[in-house]
Amino acid sequence: MRMPVLAAALLLAAAAPSPVPSPSQIAAAAPDADWRAVDPDRLLVMELADGRRIAIELAPDFAPAHVANIRALARSGWWDGAAIVRVQDDYVVQWAGAGGRHLPDGVAAHPPAEYDRPAAGLVLRRLGFPDGYAPMTGFAGDWPVAGDGHRIWLTHCYGMVGVGRDMPPDTGDGSELYAVIGQAPRQLDRNIALVGRVLDGLPALASLPRGTAALGFYAEPGQRVPIRRVRLAADMPEAERPRVEVLRTESASFHRYLDASANRRDPFFVRPAGGTDLCNVRVPSRIR
Amino acid sequence: MRMPVLAAALLLAAAAPSPVPSPSQIAAAAPDADWRAVDPDRLLVMELADGRRIAIELAPDFAPAHVANIRALARSGWWDGAAIVRVQDDYVVQWAGAGGRHLPDGVAAHPPAEYDRPAAGLVLRRLGFPDGYAPMTGFAGDWPVAGDGHRIWLTHCYGMVGVGRDMPPDTGDGSELYAVIGQAPRQLDRNIALVGRVLDGLPALASLPRGTAALGFYAEPGQRVPIRRVRLAADMPEAERPRVEVLRTESASFHRYLDASANRRDPFFVRPAGGTDLCNVRVPSRIR
Repeated sequence: MRMPVLAAALLLAAAAPSPVPSPSQIAAAAPDADWRAVDPDRLLVMELADGRRIAIELAPDFAPAHVANIRALARSGWWDGAAIVRVQDDYVVQWAGAGGRHLPDGVAAHPPAEYDRPAAGLVLRRLGFPDGYAPMTGFAGDWPVAGDGHRIWLTHCYGMVGVGRDMPPDTGDGSELYAVIGQAPRQLDRNIALVGRVLDGLPALASLPRGTAALGFYAEPGQRVPIRRVRLAADMPEAERPRVEVLRTESASFHRYLDASANRRDPFFVRPAGGTDLCNVRVPSRIR
Repeated sequence: MRMPVLAAALLLAAAAPSPVPSPSQIAAAAPDADWRAVDPDRLLVMELADGRRIAIELAPDFAPAHVANIRALARSGWWDGAAIVRVQDDYVVQWAGAGGRHLPDGVAAHPPAEYDRPAAGLVLRRLGFPDGYAPMTGFAGDWPVAGDGHRIWLTHCYGMVGVGRDMPPDTGDGSELYAVIGQAPRQLDRNIALVGRVLDGLPALASLPRGTAALGFYAEPGQRVPIRRVRLAADMPEAERPRVEVLRTESASFHRYLDASANRRDPFFVRPAGGTDLCNVRVPSRIR
């Protein structure tokens, strides 16, 4: 079989250390001090009925009321026996609670529309390349963000998790969530509360059969993908918790990773772009 | 079940015509004159063993030597009994020929590296929003492109099809192809020959199980997804050919679609972005 896109680069790297590492090689070589362990109180673990697990880091710094709701929903067993109900190609995977509409105690029915927040109090490390949607983009607290100097907001990159809502903006309570599985739908930025991102297990969601009803909903209940349960890692027995780490975006390793992403000099490439897009720079994560 | 992201907008639109249509409503309402039928000589039809079909529009205006190779390969039965060998999440699906390395007659082993072309002779209709990779982006001949005033090139948007190659740039002959199934990997622009785009059937590729070997290759031959055959539509009995149409990017309908994509004023949205990204504006297509 012919050697395909990028395979050659990998094999060459294996044969003799490349003088110019790829972004993923830079991340893999980052020292332990450059990684941040995700707090178990900020880690949501979804188990599909077939046993596969999806680990989601929550973002209380951006959507505290929604994250409080999601923690309360998880603790109440809201998603035990729930299901994935929608998979729209190049867009989102969405899951709903198993029960009806009665929210458990401690869950706010109408949290504020946390679509952005004041820029003050967060350091936005700028990407430094133009963006089609916002005056500036970059990373804050290791999250992909955009901003306008006054406000700052999470961006709808691949793997980001948001809150489904009805038409009025304050109707998203966190009881239905979606994850992005396509080209970043950044038209949704500042229109929906983003609450986290999938750090492990995303391929299990992105490879699900697409729904054939309008908007990618599964046409038949039997097509839905059953969810066993969703728990906060802090509520799991310690031995069962996934230990997820994120590369610190203020680290020297991340700076090198970013530079290498925008200027591919590893052997496969003949012409580095000299730029990149916020959502094409996935913040590296790993499982310990 | 709670009404989820965007479902409300659709239902409202169904109940009473919205005063501000969504981009997809604008495309659906475009008059027949605004659509271009894809020439059967530029349409590649891949049939999976399970009967699903994927229709790929070829781009001879950008990669004539590679497209000539692909036509000759299809006519020789190169992909009859072939297989999808690689599915890397948020990146590409890739398929190889069934045979060994012996290319059929009429297929150039070392076509020129058609990674870009002179800007002269093509009209680039500019998107008008900043881009992280290139001085300008827009559409040319209904294709998503970037340019620098002198050269113009196809961009690695979701669904675009390119030519796998080895390390030296002239080693991509068209015998292995890939389709983009994630956030646009535009670092590959001008580094690989793009030869077309999937216009129908992309979900069948994007939902395949991800490969677990390095770079998303399937670890076991039994995991490969069998391809029955790949034909040029022009070589198919007329009754079997898919009839695919593309919305003309110079049409008034496309201008409205583009404006609505960058400025979502349909009911679900509370804050239009006022901009967009080239690869988040999929050129609409339809099956007649």
